[in-house]
Amino acid sequence: MRMAIERQPAAAPALAAVALLLLASPLAARAEGGAAGSILPLPVRAVAGAGSLPITGSFAADAGQCRDDRVALAAARLPRRLSRWTGLRVLPDPARLVLTIRCGAAPAPVQRPVEDESYTLTVTAGDARLEAPTPYGALRGVETFLQLVEPVSGGFAVAAVRVEDRPRFPWRGLHVDSARHFMPVEAIERTLDGMAAVKLNVLHWHLTDDQGFRIESRRYPRLHGMGSDGEFYTPAELRRVVRYARERGIRVMPELDVPGHTGAWLVGHPELAAAPGPYLLERRWGIFDPVLDPTREEVYRFLDRLFGEVAAIFPDPCFHVGGDEVNGVQWNASPAIAEFRRQHGLADNAALQAYFNRRLERILRTHGKAMVGWDEILDPGLPADAIVQSWRGPESLAAAAKAGHGAILSSGYYLDHLDHASEIFAVDPLAGAAAALGDTESARVLGGEACSWSEYISAETLDSRVWPRAAAVAERLWSPADVTDVADLYRRLELTSTRLELEGLRHRGGPAAMQRRLAGGGDARALAALAALLEPDGIGGRAKARAYTSLDPLNRLVDALPAESGEARAFAVMVRAFLADPDRKAGREEIVRRLDAWSRIAADLAPTIAASPLLAEVDPVAADLSAAAALARRTVEAREPPALSDDEQALLARLATDRAEVRVAVAPALARLISGAMP
Amino acid sequence: MRMAIERQPAAAPALAAVALLLLASPLAARAEGGAAGSILPLPVRAVAGAGSLPITGSFAADAGQCRDDRVALAAARLPRRLSRWTGLRVLPDPARLVLTIRCGAAPAPVQRPVEDESYTLTVTAGDARLEAPTPYGALRGVETFLQLVEPVSGGFAVAAVRVEDRPRFPWRGLHVDSARHFMPVEAIERTLDGMAAVKLNVLHWHLTDDQGFRIESRRYPRLHGMGSDGEFYTPAELRRVVRYARERGIRVMPELDVPGHTGAWLVGHPELAAAPGPYLLERRWGIFDPVLDPTREEVYRFLDRLFGEVAAIFPDPCFHVGGDEVNGVQWNASPAIAEFRRQHGLADNAALQAYFNRRLERILRTHGKAMVGWDEILDPGLPADAIVQSWRGPESLAAAAKAGHGAILSSGYYLDHLDHASEIFAVDPLAGAAAALGDTESARVLGGEACSWSEYISAETLDSRVWPRAAAVAERLWSPADVTDVADLYRRLELTSTRLELEGLRHRGGPAAMQRRLAGGGDARALAALAALLEPDGIGGRAKARAYTSLDPLNRLVDALPAESGEARAFAVMVRAFLADPDRKAGREEIVRRLDAWSRIAADLAPTIAASPLLAEVDPVAADLSAAAALARRTVEAREPPALSDDEQALLARLATDRAEVRVAVAPALARLISGAMP
Repeated sequence: MRMAIERQPAAAPALAAVALLLLASPLAARAEGGAAGSILPLPVRAVAGAGSLPITGSFAADAGQCRDDRVALAAARLPRRLSRWTGLRVLPDPARLVLTIRCGAAPAPVQRPVEDESYTLTVTAGDARLEAPTPYGALRGVETFLQLVEPVSGGFAVAAVRVEDRPRFPWRGLHVDSARHFMPVEAIERTLDGMAAVKLNVLHWHLTDDQGFRIESRRYPRLHGMGSDGEFYTPAELRRVVRYARERGIRVMPELDVPGHTGAWLVGHPELAAAPGPYLLERRWGIFDPVLDPTREEVYRFLDRLFGEVAAIFPDPCFHVGGDEVNGVQWNASPAIAEFRRQHGLADNAALQAYFNRRLERILRTHGKAMVGWDEILDPGLPADAIVQSWRGPESLAAAAKAGHGAILSSGYYLDHLDHASEIFAVDPLAGAAAALGDTESARVLGGEACSWSEYISAETLDSRVWPRAAAVAERLWSPADVTDVADLYRRLELTSTRLELEGLRHRGGPAAMQRRLAGGGDARALAALAALLEPDGIGGRAKARAYTSLDPLNRLVDALPAESGEARAFAVMVRAFLADPDRKAGREEIVRRLDAWSRIAADLAPTIAASPLLAEVDPVAADLSAAAALARRTVEAREPPALSDDEQALLARLATDRAEVRVAVAPALARLISGAMP
Repeated sequence: MRMAIERQPAAAPALAAVALLLLASPLAARAEGGAAGSILPLPVRAVAGAGSLPITGSFAADAGQCRDDRVALAAARLPRRLSRWTGLRVLPDPARLVLTIRCGAAPAPVQRPVEDESYTLTVTAGDARLEAPTPYGALRGVETFLQLVEPVSGGFAVAAVRVEDRPRFPWRGLHVDSARHFMPVEAIERTLDGMAAVKLNVLHWHLTDDQGFRIESRRYPRLHGMGSDGEFYTPAELRRVVRYARERGIRVMPELDVPGHTGAWLVGHPELAAAPGPYLLERRWGIFDPVLDPTREEVYRFLDRLFGEVAAIFPDPCFHVGGDEVNGVQWNASPAIAEFRRQHGLADNAALQAYFNRRLERILRTHGKAMVGWDEILDPGLPADAIVQSWRGPESLAAAAKAGHGAILSSGYYLDHLDHASEIFAVDPLAGAAAALGDTESARVLGGEACSWSEYISAETLDSRVWPRAAAVAERLWSPADVTDVADLYRRLELTSTRLELEGLRHRGGPAAMQRRLAGGGDARALAALAALLEPDGIGGRAKARAYTSLDPLNRLVDALPAESGEARAFAVMVRAFLADPDRKAGREEIVRRLDAWSRIAADLAPTIAASPLLAEVDPVAADLSAAAALARRTVEAREPPALSDDEQALLARLATDRAEVRVAVAPALARLISGAMP
């Protein structure tokens, strides 16, 4: 099967048209008269019209001309979604259509990696018309329409506008790791709701790893039976997710990571391993030795049957085989494998894995699937159809594209690193090494995927670890490359956050509830005030802090913090303005008010911390934060700021250090304030 | 069918034992050594033991000895619930049981209005044993066990304790009105989760009214087809709710309100009415004229078939027929009805309705159901089996019990009035007129039901209008009568709130999200600060403020407020202590800090309000609140407080007045502060 793995494939006429659309002119955003409003991701072009279209409780949409069940269902969901977004009781009046959706038929029965997702949305004072060449464009346009609804005097309305829109990249994914921490179906469905709202279109579902095999296999029941702690998806549940995603124009690509990261497989099937067992379910995080034996035919027969079983559940044309982080320990230790390598002229383990990959690719081809793998699979012998997902850096992205492979970027989009949205947003798939690619090569850069590896993410914290930052990746991958206004991104992220919350996402409510759980009978408000000034460590900091296992609860303050502190961001802006003012007056009152409040947090929180073993670790953080706020307050007040004592310098040094796996997000601004106010 | 409608029925031996348990000794709570902790409702007796039982991620419970699927399912849900309550990853280790549940078999296949719900829970440092005569007691005990889990150094534990517990009243209900605003199945299921957590055991489901007929009738499809705006439950959905409730030991009693409140029926079936149609779906709230014609046999034939259809879906032995608020207009206007009354010697409309009720009771009996109705059905001719639900006052409760009827109290438990938990908690079914009842009569007082009429409650606001205040009713109906410590109730309500939140209830997250929606791109934090000081008007205030209809959105600030302001409660306590201190020092700093913050709210919020048509109405409230806070601040500061100017007195008068359908919950304390600080 020849896959559509380029943005400009030569063979398929329908896709060529897409590619033309995508490449004919470099995308540049044009919003006139603030017409793009709070749309996220920003559209290619939005031109304001005259007047506005009232949105009332009789709102009715019609997608009858689309003859696509997905668009019909999206239209059917609109009243209830509109109700959640506005609070209106929506009882559609079909006699007075407000939104008419027209679209062409889907060019293929199953959504492909490259589809035309363009649409045009025309809103006048009289009605709204959404037109798209495909159902995918129509689904995207519906999201844009909803985002345009805003309160006006007496109700709600959409300001007249004409939006012309299409994505910059066809592959805009979110990777969810259900292996390290199991994510119930409800959590996955919430995630899909969020993805659809920001026009992400691939759920990359990491289903197996050393810590868990999360698919119920009818063929090999020991896989999940012995390798999942009972936490796995039934085929019916997997199909339910596939259907839920499909209805939102989202592909679901399963990942069964081989030949490494297979510890959970080997608990029930030690005969597949390159070294004798027995194997136990891995509880730690990291890179481990257990690996499949690529020299034995029975391993390929096993994979053939298992992949066939999984391929029948997931209609997506792509199948991710992982391929990352094979440390070679077991392969090196096996005389039989050494002999096999010698016989087949495989110079090293990389060559051995390349051999394994060629076998895999053939197996997948018989099941109608194209192979996708992490960038370790990139090898001169890698079949051209294989798609490479770059996680170790942008160089491998460019290398893959040059070698003729479809390529997707995840390096820089690891949400579990807990970088700020601004940092993630700055990562462009066509920057760095990829910037030098020619047109044909750069067309092979299909897009990217935000990743949420779940060593430190549980079902309870998934939402707050993914949202709203995944929306920054969504905008980077959808919107023109010149959309780079970070302040405007944050403004729209805030609104998007509220909308996602109304859709049922728990990225705000979850951390708030966890904080209240931590506060127990104590002062939940004081804890919330502290939490607002902190940010959680990402995977790096946490791994350094403790030897975590999969059995350790993720229920401490670090887990109950949103990924990013809006309070710290706002305070940094205030401090910058204050220090830039020679009179030291700009925003002074605001700053002093905050410092006063922060300086009281430690005292307010002391009884709560004293009563909570889980909060004890936060005590020094709260104490130092309040002390530093008090110091900053004095510095701001003082006409002749005193030099810092050794103790005070030590305080600031501590404040800049991560403790309890959290960082004081306002520490840099506090330090600037203290030093900047000195003579 | 003879119903078990008394707390001490004569005939049924099993129930006599229950009644003995219930009545042998008047219930009085005894908690020793703080052993009752944060349990809500408080148990009859809790005696602290030595040591504590560690609760870890290997927590395992066994209910194998119960041979009841409900208890088995409750045990099976425990790991995930424990996980949500603690954040532990719970993978049960069956080899090391922590909780063993033993219970007797259910005495009847379907849960009855009076069941033995007693249980004994014994927790030692080694394990926990839950024992109960019935599955119902076991289900209640599981909730108590969960509530005892608390964080300790290094993890979680249950302090050793022996809890002996049983309910004071067997009928502890929550009434949900899906007719005036439709509540999706998910909202009902969330509600059932909350009910189970606080040991409520009857969902009284108000399914039809003038504004909507919410059951899909296969027999009479015009009922829901023309009377529901498409918002109705399918039989499958109704059964799903019944099953969900059953698994939690909760009965589901349907209400089809007749002969009044039937406007929605008559849209499709005007032939049933006492006056010629046509009828339109009612959009207003109130008491309306349309009523069934009780003189025509075809009406009874219709009700027989419809009730039969509904009775087959709901296995509960009770069937609520409403019977309230018949205004008599149509009956009085009909010569045929006058003639019928004359022929049958029915003196007035009350007698006519009594005739109707006797017919109804016979119909229900053929379907194996006992009749329940609002207190209007109380009439000398009312069959003894009928149960009376008192909504107009406690007198009708006593009268019903005296007349030999089972009686349940709802007067005083109307959650939609938005009274404080403390007020609701003070209402006792056996106080007032019922206090004078003899033992046999008072045994007929089966319990009570919290009601949540939904004129001003939508699916979005259901949780915040019901929780946590319904838990105060739950405690009143479960715990001994001498449990009356309001401060302790509020302490435990706060913890219960957090636990309900972790179970998925949205009583906190919902209002927060709605407030953020209202704030739009503005200052959500300032709006939250204002919201924390306000309380929403109940049904009375709202009806006075506007002519609401069922089509009006419930999306304004009044709808986005929790029912009760914890901030106002805390502030009132502070002010009281401050004024009681002759030196005016107690808590002064705390008070001043709050007043400072509140005095800034109006300014902080001004741009947000200016940008939001939905918030405009709140502008004067915010302005006056901030002005009053500033005034209080000056009064507190002043050694010689100035007399109030006319303007200032007018300010306080405005502050004490509801505007924008909200009241300033801190207004009384502010007024006390201002007047109390004066010479």
